[in-house]
Amino acid sequence: MPDQVNRQWRLAARPTGAIQPGDFAWREEPVPMPGANQVLVRTRYLSLDPTHRIWMSDMDQYMPPVEVGAVMRGGTIGVVERSNLTDCPEGELIRGYWGWQDYAVLGADALGNRLPKDSDLPLTAYMGLLGSIGCTAYFGLLEIGRPEPGETVVVSAAAGAVGSVVGQIAKIKGCRVVGIAGSDAKCGWITDQLGFDAAINYRHEDVLAALRRHCPGGIDVAFENVGGEILDAVLTLINLNARIVICGLIAQYNADRPVPGPYMFRNVLMKRARVEGFIVSDFLGRFPAAIAELADWHAQGKIQYRVDVVDGLENAPAALPRLFDGANQGKLIVRVSGP
Amino acid sequence: MPDQVNRQWRLAARPTGAIQPGDFAWREEPVPMPGANQVLVRTRYLSLDPTHRIWMSDMDQYMPPVEVGAVMRGGTIGVVERSNLTDCPEGELIRGYWGWQDYAVLGADALGNRLPKDSDLPLTAYMGLLGSIGCTAYFGLLEIGRPEPGETVVVSAAAGAVGSVVGQIAKIKGCRVVGIAGSDAKCGWITDQLGFDAAINYRHEDVLAALRRHCPGGIDVAFENVGGEILDAVLTLINLNARIVICGLIAQYNADRPVPGPYMFRNVLMKRARVEGFIVSDFLGRFPAAIAELADWHAQGKIQYRVDVVDGLENAPAALPRLFDGANQGKLIVRVSGP
Repeated sequence: MPDQVNRQWRLAARPTGAIQPGDFAWREEPVPMPGANQVLVRTRYLSLDPTHRIWMSDMDQYMPPVEVGAVMRGGTIGVVERSNLTDCPEGELIRGYWGWQDYAVLGADALGNRLPKDSDLPLTAYMGLLGSIGCTAYFGLLEIGRPEPGETVVVSAAAGAVGSVVGQIAKIKGCRVVGIAGSDAKCGWITDQLGFDAAINYRHEDVLAALRRHCPGGIDVAFENVGGEILDAVLTLINLNARIVICGLIAQYNADRPVPGPYMFRNVLMKRARVEGFIVSDFLGRFPAAIAELADWHAQGKIQYRVDVVDGLENAPAALPRLFDGANQGKLIVRVSGP
Repeated sequence: MPDQVNRQWRLAARPTGAIQPGDFAWREEPVPMPGANQVLVRTRYLSLDPTHRIWMSDMDQYMPPVEVGAVMRGGTIGVVERSNLTDCPEGELIRGYWGWQDYAVLGADALGNRLPKDSDLPLTAYMGLLGSIGCTAYFGLLEIGRPEPGETVVVSAAAGAVGSVVGQIAKIKGCRVVGIAGSDAKCGWITDQLGFDAAINYRHEDVLAALRRHCPGGIDVAFENVGGEILDAVLTLINLNARIVICGLIAQYNADRPVPGPYMFRNVLMKRARVEGFIVSDFLGRFPAAIAELADWHAQGKIQYRVDVVDGLENAPAALPRLFDGANQGKLIVRVSGP
């Protein structure tokens, strides 16, 4: 290991508009050595998520922004390679947020989130359905959206990592589910494979007209990942006491100036609707129960998921923009090391 | 009575932009006669409210719009002048929605909301603090906004009929209260007489800068009657888990095309905020308890209210625009007959 390096991507500049390759800087450092009561983890997988764009900016946000010059933040899974902690031996699988690098030294306080070593599922499942992604769908839909059987649920970015799980949970709960996605292939996947009742390709269809057609009884719950015109179309058709779960607003993350909010904002009043933002970490204590239920649904064949794995840490900056142009097919993950 | 007429204002045209006198048509009809199990009421007071502008339009709204040609809708208080119902004798005081006219015939189902004949309070109190207005403030703040002691509450249209009560209830609940109003006189009234901690004259001050100054700990609850730029300034400064009560959006009622929603809409996500519209009639069954508590607070000197009474049904159309240009001083009411 002494001849190895710790490869890193650091934030080089705050993006203006869309993320550019030059917003990251490559750095190679010596592999750090764990001190007393610390372990060295080697990154296996790195999660790429739309919220990276928020962390890269200095807008007012839900966590501190990443400092320019710091290692880029990101969800990670890794294996303990050296340990000075008896209760965390070599070979343990750890989930954390040590970011875009090969190695990190962690103390006991960062080792609480361990993954099973004997799971039937690939490690990548724990970065999607059985991790923050699945929990975001689970708590956002069930705790904020609170759908009732028979209600109509609309999901934007419906073929995305979160949206695809939201729609499947809504089906389990007996709802009519309409998804909005960005290609015919994605629309086909969510209707044919995942059981959505209808799908709308926002690149080729008038979303408002299509929603009118697919939601003849109006919209009761919207799970919003996008914002912008899609949210406006949804607000136009909401029913009394609708719930709009604001999970993401990816349509405006790249904006370099404030963008108008929804033109149909008045319907929040007219329909006595509830519009509520949330962050999954507010539900952290309930993750194990949610993940157990998601795993159970998966084992019963009621929930499917897809991962889109990019090989090599060096390719992370080039892969990230795929979340914003819709090129990814499933949860976007970088394989950093290992099988 | 046979030689009397029933004077009426009917909706003549849906307004384009601000309400114009020609949007109403004056009509004189014979006084209707009550049939079996009916009473004839004579209007004493007519309530003028910002929501009239919504009812006059055909936008998607929370009640059916008023039909062109129909008597204009409005909250009313009247006295029974003829009765064919033993349990509703002449002299009973009735609250209802029979609209902009001198007389109406009502059946038993419209007589449930009676006012005390021996109250110390003037009848107009039942059109403001002890009616829908007070209940709007009470349920909107306490059930939707849910302020905690020590939190900062911002109220727009703070010298208005609803806003002035909202701020006083928030003070009773131990909050810091900042009001936004449209004149120095109104600002002086809410701080000097009603006990608001601070007031901002939106016509002369930069609202965002003033809110920053008066809400050094951020905003926890906003009671929104206005929308537009004021809502945007509020959203800029909200704290985590803020609650935005959407009671009215008067800034856009006159718009003849969709207006942009708040530019800081993204803060609903970043601050995990809840934005919720409501209508007071959803709480109808709990009005008596709320009115009793409001009356109690009033008797203890903890809540004051102001009415702005215009004389004569004929003057109603000319008075209504005062709600939109801020000229009214307190709850706007038309005295139609009686003392």
